[in-house]
Amino acid sequence: MPARDLYHNHVRNALIKDGWTITDDPLRLRLGKKDMYIDLGAERILWAEKNSSRIAVEIKSFLGASDLADLHDALGQFVLYHDVLQETQADRILFLAVRDTVYATVFESPIGNLLLKNGRLQLLVFSVEQEAIVKWVPEIPTAN
Amino acid sequence: MPARDLYHNHVRNALIKDGWTITDDPLRLRLGKKDMYIDLGAERILWAEKNSSRIAVEIKSFLGASDLADLHDALGQFVLYHDVLQETQADRILFLAVRDTVYATVFESPIGNLLLKNGRLQLLVFSVEQEAIVKWVPEIPTAN
Repeated sequence: MPARDLYHNHVRNALIKDGWTITDDPLRLRLGKKDMYIDLGAERILWAEKNSSRIAVEIKSFLGASDLADLHDALGQFVLYHDVLQETQADRILFLAVRDTVYATVFESPIGNLLLKNGRLQLLVFSVEQEAIVKWVPEIPTAN
Repeated sequence: MPARDLYHNHVRNALIKDGWTITDDPLRLRLGKKDMYIDLGAERILWAEKNSSRIAVEIKSFLGASDLADLHDALGQFVLYHDVLQETQADRILFLAVRDTVYATVFESPIGNLLLKNGRLQLLVFSVEQEAIVKWVPEIPTAN
């Protein structure tokens, strides 16, 4: 299994605080002979809909020397995991977890905007200080 | 500008042998304040159609410790460059250049197949020994 991301526990705690149950840490995927590990799997019951939402969360620190290289890396993993999830657990929605400061610098830039506009990524934006979810992009139904 | 890929000249020569004119080495893209460089830009006149094809080619060696990590990396760059090209030079088609041996091990595996089936990548498969294009995935019109 791969090394845990620096913000692994921050995101885990933020999800729990938001009403999610962590079901997988990490979430293992398998296609052919290849194993892949997404950082977290989580589930939440939406009482209003009487059914549950299932997500997979890949956490990216964006602590490399270049935002663009970090973005390639995150985007490549996201697209690959997305397509493998579609084949193997199609009801689980994938999110890339990034810090609020990364969201502001990378995803509010023209390149980040373009990728979001094209539906290439879905984001879970979190605050390190508060260990809390700041927003989902696009928005998902709230638990209330 | 980034360092050249190990197989840069092999792919360049293979394209020329196939009737392409190299127009950019590297091909510069700009979106917002970010510069990006795709390894090669090339053009070919298709006399039958009385117009030209324009391509951009990103070369990936797949010489890392893990095929899966190399695939993330290549896929992330491809998707990003693809989307930026669509915004800035929409008539130019992007290809990822990989060796025939990489095609066989990575892109004929279940994960590679899935990405190709989903239209995530377009490939230019080349032979290092022959400095020649082996095939395009999907096929493109030939010069004849």
